[in-house]
Amino acid sequence: MCSVISRVKPVQRALALSLRLTANTEGLSYAAAESRRFCPGVSSGVEPLRATSRSYCSRMALTDGLLFRQLFESESSTYTYLLADTETKEAVLIDPVLETIDRDLMLIHELGLNLKVAVNTHCHADHITSTGLMKKRLVGLKSAISKFSGASADILLSEGDKIPFGKHYLTVRDTPGHTDGCMALVSADQSMAFTGDALLIRGCGRTDFQQGSAKKLYDSVHQKIFTLPDQCLIYPAHDYLGQTVSTVGEERKFNPRLTKSLEEFVSIMNNLNLPKPKKINISVPANLVCGVHGV
Amino acid sequence: MCSVISRVKPVQRALALSLRLTANTEGLSYAAAESRRFCPGVSSGVEPLRATSRSYCSRMALTDGLLFRQLFESESSTYTYLLADTETKEAVLIDPVLETIDRDLMLIHELGLNLKVAVNTHCHADHITSTGLMKKRLVGLKSAISKFSGASADILLSEGDKIPFGKHYLTVRDTPGHTDGCMALVSADQSMAFTGDALLIRGCGRTDFQQGSAKKLYDSVHQKIFTLPDQCLIYPAHDYLGQTVSTVGEERKFNPRLTKSLEEFVSIMNNLNLPKPKKINISVPANLVCGVHGV
Repeated sequence: MCSVISRVKPVQRALALSLRLTANTEGLSYAAAESRRFCPGVSSGVEPLRATSRSYCSRMALTDGLLFRQLFESESSTYTYLLADTETKEAVLIDPVLETIDRDLMLIHELGLNLKVAVNTHCHADHITSTGLMKKRLVGLKSAISKFSGASADILLSEGDKIPFGKHYLTVRDTPGHTDGCMALVSADQSMAFTGDALLIRGCGRTDFQQGSAKKLYDSVHQKIFTLPDQCLIYPAHDYLGQTVSTVGEERKFNPRLTKSLEEFVSIMNNLNLPKPKKINISVPANLVCGVHGV
Repeated sequence: MCSVISRVKPVQRALALSLRLTANTEGLSYAAAESRRFCPGVSSGVEPLRATSRSYCSRMALTDGLLFRQLFESESSTYTYLLADTETKEAVLIDPVLETIDRDLMLIHELGLNLKVAVNTHCHADHITSTGLMKKRLVGLKSAISKFSGASADILLSEGDKIPFGKHYLTVRDTPGHTDGCMALVSADQSMAFTGDALLIRGCGRTDFQQGSAKKLYDSVHQKIFTLPDQCLIYPAHDYLGQTVSTVGEERKFNPRLTKSLEEFVSIMNNLNLPKPKKINISVPANLVCGVHGV
């Protein structure tokens, strides 16, 4: 198979056009996309991953009775995640977006869920969170964010804190670097990690504003995410190429930035020369107050 | 929870704008989206779903050793699905799109998979399949499509046929209505159904061209899809609202079209007045020959 597939010739133009890289409002994985286009594993002789029996299956259910939904907001290419206990119906929503609040509330209602916590993995610069407006719609809903984010919320989180929903919970791992207040949220069985902008699929968040630090990000990913089991599923805050999930094993092997040395990584990140997100001057002030700024 | 969430006020403008309904090139779920905006379950007093323990979890793994990936092509809002046996590495690709062929081949390579079959759920009108070009890149790859599609392929499928990959297989269920050659592909344990354009999340495929028949579609969905277990996950060929998965139980309860009587459904479908897909005159002739028309 490897010898056969190595004949693949890049159709870079079609890929670049169709995936609308210019629409990447936070510019997070543009360089990663470039890297994949020009230095893909196919041509660099990188060996494919050796999967164990249950690796790389996004349908793993090491935890029973867990409802899971991945939702996408196309303008900012943001993923929102809904997790719930199918018995108690208690639910958690990760990184909800203002523009899709009605879709998300409708789904929560249809599934009969009781949304307890709406949590942001960090103070986003590319879109406004719906947590503030959602709190106005759902009595008892709590907002949550890292205590290092500088943002206000009902619950301020840090390393080791747990977000419970029914018999399940997510554990906070601080992952500063993209911003000071970035967190990864890890399921109890370590089968899923919601990595925010720290680790994207074959990419990572930029580090050139909002307290960004390439060295901190490198350390965060290596110490807090790459130490999870290889088969742990990676669910990022964004993807610009239509990818929905990865694994720790895959990113440890194929991430074009995080597989480099610290020095190389810092050099890459310091030379991305990305434009600032279009909405940064609106989004950041709003997200410092759960997105309700001006509502 | 229900009494609280029923206070939800629609933010229709933001939803409509952000989800770019006008970009729906096949026009499949525009009316469904409209219906959700103006007649949502929230305001119609529809009761939420009563979930059993393992229902509505897109991470169910009734089948061990199955790799599963959902991929998205943003121009046509098409989902491509990759399934593989983690032991033998034999894989099947469902509804691959020409514009994302490099992304898909890269992932297949990185995961070390041996792609045996690339199958289309029907002859698409909104995008060109990559199966033909992919066959040129991967020696031994077979294309597959319904024998009722009128399209040429290595494997012509019909009701009850199986597509094996390692110890797993998908079973064909003929679902004519959107086109004569539509099929649903159902996993061996009936935990997943790839429904093409027959059943979308809270929507369905249009029936006004390519042998479309609203009555046939209604019968297909009710007889071939709604007879699957309630917890069976529905993976459609498209979604225009950022939704990634549903279940048979949800669609039986909340699909705004398929919950109607046959007569009402036919009336809805005959009055959609959708514009034709932009690429229909290019896509259909190309897809009749695995997308290699003119390549």
